[in-house]
Amino acid sequence: MEDSHISLAHGNGGRFMRELIGEIFARHLANPRLDVDADAVHIPLPAGEVVVTTDGFTVQPLEFPGGDIGTLAVHGTVNDLAVAGARAQYLTLNVFVEEGFEVAMLDRLVASLGRAAREAGVAVAAGDTKVLPRGEGGGLYLATTGVGIRRPGLRLGLSSIREGDRILVSGPVGDHGVAVMLAREQFGLRGELRSDAASVLPLTEALLGLEGLRFMRDPTRGGLATVANDIVRATGLGVTLEEERVPVRDPVRSVCEILGYDPLYLACEGRVVAVVAPEAAEAALGAWRGMANGGEAAPIGSVGGRARARVVMRTWLGGERVLEELEDDPLPRIC
Amino acid sequence: MEDSHISLAHGNGGRFMRELIGEIFARHLANPRLDVDADAVHIPLPAGEVVVTTDGFTVQPLEFPGGDIGTLAVHGTVNDLAVAGARAQYLTLNVFVEEGFEVAMLDRLVASLGRAAREAGVAVAAGDTKVLPRGEGGGLYLATTGVGIRRPGLRLGLSSIREGDRILVSGPVGDHGVAVMLAREQFGLRGELRSDAASVLPLTEALLGLEGLRFMRDPTRGGLATVANDIVRATGLGVTLEEERVPVRDPVRSVCEILGYDPLYLACEGRVVAVVAPEAAEAALGAWRGMANGGEAAPIGSVGGRARARVVMRTWLGGERVLEELEDDPLPRIC
Repeated sequence: MEDSHISLAHGNGGRFMRELIGEIFARHLANPRLDVDADAVHIPLPAGEVVVTTDGFTVQPLEFPGGDIGTLAVHGTVNDLAVAGARAQYLTLNVFVEEGFEVAMLDRLVASLGRAAREAGVAVAAGDTKVLPRGEGGGLYLATTGVGIRRPGLRLGLSSIREGDRILVSGPVGDHGVAVMLAREQFGLRGELRSDAASVLPLTEALLGLEGLRFMRDPTRGGLATVANDIVRATGLGVTLEEERVPVRDPVRSVCEILGYDPLYLACEGRVVAVVAPEAAEAALGAWRGMANGGEAAPIGSVGGRARARVVMRTWLGGERVLEELEDDPLPRIC
Repeated sequence: MEDSHISLAHGNGGRFMRELIGEIFARHLANPRLDVDADAVHIPLPAGEVVVTTDGFTVQPLEFPGGDIGTLAVHGTVNDLAVAGARAQYLTLNVFVEEGFEVAMLDRLVASLGRAAREAGVAVAAGDTKVLPRGEGGGLYLATTGVGIRRPGLRLGLSSIREGDRILVSGPVGDHGVAVMLAREQFGLRGELRSDAASVLPLTEALLGLEGLRFMRDPTRGGLATVANDIVRATGLGVTLEEERVPVRDPVRSVCEILGYDPLYLACEGRVVAVVAPEAAEAALGAWRGMANGGEAAPIGSVGGRARARVVMRTWLGGERVLEELEDDPLPRIC
């Protein structure tokens, strides 16, 4: 492209827009399904149940240790399908880019998105770009919709959860939240921590054959505490978490202590929370612990009865603390 | 909802977000497929080829005579599938809303979107909302992805177009562009004109059985002239349009004369451009003219040879004018 920065003309359906699409989007996202001249695209699907999900991405800064808005858009969508038991096949991509945005950065982010998509085995089938007048738009927002396929008859969901079930997490929580926080200059902190952002598909597929698997979710916005509250609200059962069992990395714990955050409410982008029948817990942990991203998998709690339908954390000191549903936003634009 | 305006807490994954989703999105978009607690949703599909499309919407003002950003998001997506020969089955919806946005207006727009979806026979299967800090975000942006089904083996596309084919339009062009323009106070003009925004599915389905149907497109961003240029670029063939045959309403013509716009470059949101074999033109026009939105359907030009691969307009006075590909944006945030 001749231009170094995005102008309104890149969004008008004419020549500049065609150049932008051809030289950035088509180049980095090329695959046999992506027809940038078509209104709509045929997506051949393997046998199975068709599953969809959608997500918007507004993370700031756009690049952070361990990822960027492009990889996040791919992993967020692949992961929402994965925890529903599905394998992502296609993505659609919406881009909202502000007039004046640097073309070199857009190119870098789209290239990164394309790499993440290829690694996750998912093809970008359709896209759309809108250019927002300068002063609106905060740089770049993305939205992705994923189409996936899962084995028919798979019954995973909040409604499958039973009293006595065990709650597992595939790795330490809060890395993504803290990595993004440290990448923002406003906090005046520096650290080596990287976001955990990754495809969780290997982790979820490792559990799919397991008798007794009830429910999986990736603890993104609102973190582990929000997933636990979702379980309580949907089932009417209590949840107990054991503070000493929830894996949290030391730098995450330190930053949270300095800034007054609770790591249990911070976003992860590459972890899975699974609820399994008690007799399945050992097999699930064993499967995860043998995997690249599952070495620190841990049993962190259990589902209780109806008598106390709250999320209760048993603390290190033997006390109890109720984890309320999130009210204040600890950290906007985290994903 | 207790709050009259959107706050950042409505985007944090916690209680406020749940209230927003429950009281606005779930209420207006309710259908058996919409499970607001799920990460991903199973969408049963009828037999046929699965087709996807995606679009972003940034129109200003958000409400205008004949439509709003909600109806536009539904019709834009339904129409992209319709011109590809497909019937929309499901939508996913991404909402980017700015902190401080009026809840009553969001409610009105989502209600309008829900009505348009029900009328078009399409279910909202999944959604996501992000709240943008005040000063970013320009109020409200939407992105929709549509999943549709079409008859297997249907071959419609730019590559099917042949020399001698006829070009038809289903009704007057430029109404949407001018209606949105007049709704912006900046122009100081007032008019009775309404946007043509509508589902074009009845118009496209009326032609699907027709032997000799080559290609259909809804002339949105960049208008009729941009569709004609797309044909030239994809086929290497020339296109000739007859100025006196292109239907343009008088108020559209007047506003364009005052402001110096060319109606052929203005967006329509409820029209279809069809390219058909010469022997199919009469049947196609006959089918359209018997329909509610097709009364003013007209044959507007034809596809020529390779010798002059341009879009040429034969003027009222017998002259010729080349319609170049759009460079400047005549009107940003039109859809």
